[in-house]
Amino acid sequence: LTVQNVPSLDLVERVCAGDRRAIARMLSRAESGGAEAHEALDALYRRGGQAHVVGITGVSGSGKSTLVAKLIAVALRQNRKVGVVAIDPSSPFSGGSILGDRIRMGEVAGHPSVFVRSMATRGALGGLAHGTLESVDIFDAAGYDMIFIETVGVGQDEVDVVRAAHTTVVVSAPGLGDDIQAIKAGILEIADVHAVSKGDKPEADKTVSELKSMLGLAVAAGGIKRHVPVIKTSSSAGEGVAELLAAIDAHREALVASGQYEQRRQSIRERRMLKAAEQVLHEAFERGRQGRMADLVADLAAGTISPRSAASRLLAHIGMEVTR
Amino acid sequence: LTVQNVPSLDLVERVCAGDRRAIARMLSRAESGGAEAHEALDALYRRGGQAHVVGITGVSGSGKSTLVAKLIAVALRQNRKVGVVAIDPSSPFSGGSILGDRIRMGEVAGHPSVFVRSMATRGALGGLAHGTLESVDIFDAAGYDMIFIETVGVGQDEVDVVRAAHTTVVVSAPGLGDDIQAIKAGILEIADVHAVSKGDKPEADKTVSELKSMLGLAVAAGGIKRHVPVIKTSSSAGEGVAELLAAIDAHREALVASGQYEQRRQSIRERRMLKAAEQVLHEAFERGRQGRMADLVADLAAGTISPRSAASRLLAHIGMEVTR
Repeated sequence: LTVQNVPSLDLVERVCAGDRRAIARMLSRAESGGAEAHEALDALYRRGGQAHVVGITGVSGSGKSTLVAKLIAVALRQNRKVGVVAIDPSSPFSGGSILGDRIRMGEVAGHPSVFVRSMATRGALGGLAHGTLESVDIFDAAGYDMIFIETVGVGQDEVDVVRAAHTTVVVSAPGLGDDIQAIKAGILEIADVHAVSKGDKPEADKTVSELKSMLGLAVAAGGIKRHVPVIKTSSSAGEGVAELLAAIDAHREALVASGQYEQRRQSIRERRMLKAAEQVLHEAFERGRQGRMADLVADLAAGTISPRSAASRLLAHIGMEVTR
Repeated sequence: LTVQNVPSLDLVERVCAGDRRAIARMLSRAESGGAEAHEALDALYRRGGQAHVVGITGVSGSGKSTLVAKLIAVALRQNRKVGVVAIDPSSPFSGGSILGDRIRMGEVAGHPSVFVRSMATRGALGGLAHGTLESVDIFDAAGYDMIFIETVGVGQDEVDVVRAAHTTVVVSAPGLGDDIQAIKAGILEIADVHAVSKGDKPEADKTVSELKSMLGLAVAAGGIKRHVPVIKTSSSAGEGVAELLAAIDAHREALVASGQYEQRRQSIRERRMLKAAEQVLHEAFERGRQGRMADLVADLAAGTISPRSAASRLLAHIGMEVTR
């Protein structure tokens, strides 16, 4: 334990006590991603493990953010603490990635049991914003019962969110065309719960029945092996929101009852480990460009070695570095 | 050189001589992904490097596959050899992943200078089908001048294809709604060339001008720093197809002239190396579950170590294995 680590570990205790300023500072450290935060983040990781992590995804314009705000309101009335990591660049929450953590959430804004963190995305081809999963750990260690990860329903972000969440909710708005439906087919199977937003629109019932029939086909084809509820919600009328929260809770309970919850948690941990290893790999390669890996880069450029052989050399090098 | 490797290396020579049966066999070995094919694939990788690799992406229903068939017809009239790797599950080409390589391509079907390979995808959350990039290497070594990778324009497949291609073409069909456009915004910046299909439809001109204005905005905002042509095509009338092929060629020529071509090739090589290293990592972890990595898995499950610490132990282990 070196002197400069002490403040970080002190911060860990304050985060675990639920101190909002400590949480905010820790979130910033997680997002900036420096090695000096690793020890504190590892400590927080070991202190968590109680929260229900819920991924919420859907194309932009699906009413996802408004629905999340309504879900939070219901959860607050049940005396829960709710954390939100918003990584949808089009979300009013993470419009706040420019405004820091100032967000417009209507009735739940500024509530002491809600903490919203907006993350900058890495761009269209990016993958999860740096620190997303660490932010979940921080909320978890700080005693938040339910943590929403909100992401736009396209691309790598979504894949990563689904693989990090215990329960995944896909939000669909009524009245989308066939082309959207074709895209949706791809995300149909990732949902544990489907929410249809804007339930006051006349087309909402059609969307509900379309989703149900698509799910029916997927079940018949063996692509889906469980019951996936479809919940019609209306953020303006407040209808269906409590049912949606109940369906999310029921999904967790069913996982726990069947023993799949621990299984899912373990696969999340393993995936995070592999992702962390990949990050070490990328960083080692970037760092090594000028130094010990310069030969490797030159051989690759000359085409004298294949990417596969280069990979072995890279891994051997990293193995030595890590062991040292 | 062991005895069992000889047939593979003999196969390499036959592939390089353009032998179609040898190519087909090598493609199957690449797709099945066994370690016994590594040496031959590495040898083929070193024999390639001449082909122009073109990624073609667009949502299903965009008329992408028909357009690729027309592009091939034009390329054949210019005495080029064309390889196609089709990884769009909805494509009539890769409907053939069930039918093997029997495909319905109209006028270009069965032409001795065309080789189409359809790949099974890994499913909705999958990433590139195994062997996709190796298939490109095989066509390249076999003397194919132009290699199309056809993929559906959503998710991780597309990201990987874009990062593996020298030139990326995004195909848009006219008459898509605002929701699609919103999704498109994400893929606007990845295109080197935009193609609007179904140019005989009355709405095609509107789609062309919308794309141009979106591109104009992106250029003004600094998101795009180059001229991106928008080409209206009609597969039925055969219009715009030669222009599209010319725009693809012009993109490569511009890259070569500016020195960016070698830069892009190098970043493709480095990305492939990193991907290969990631694969070694995943395989080592899977293999190690029962043996030397059982402790690691148990510690992870107990929550006593963080994914980051586990990653270091995994990398140290792999480093030793690779060096041995």
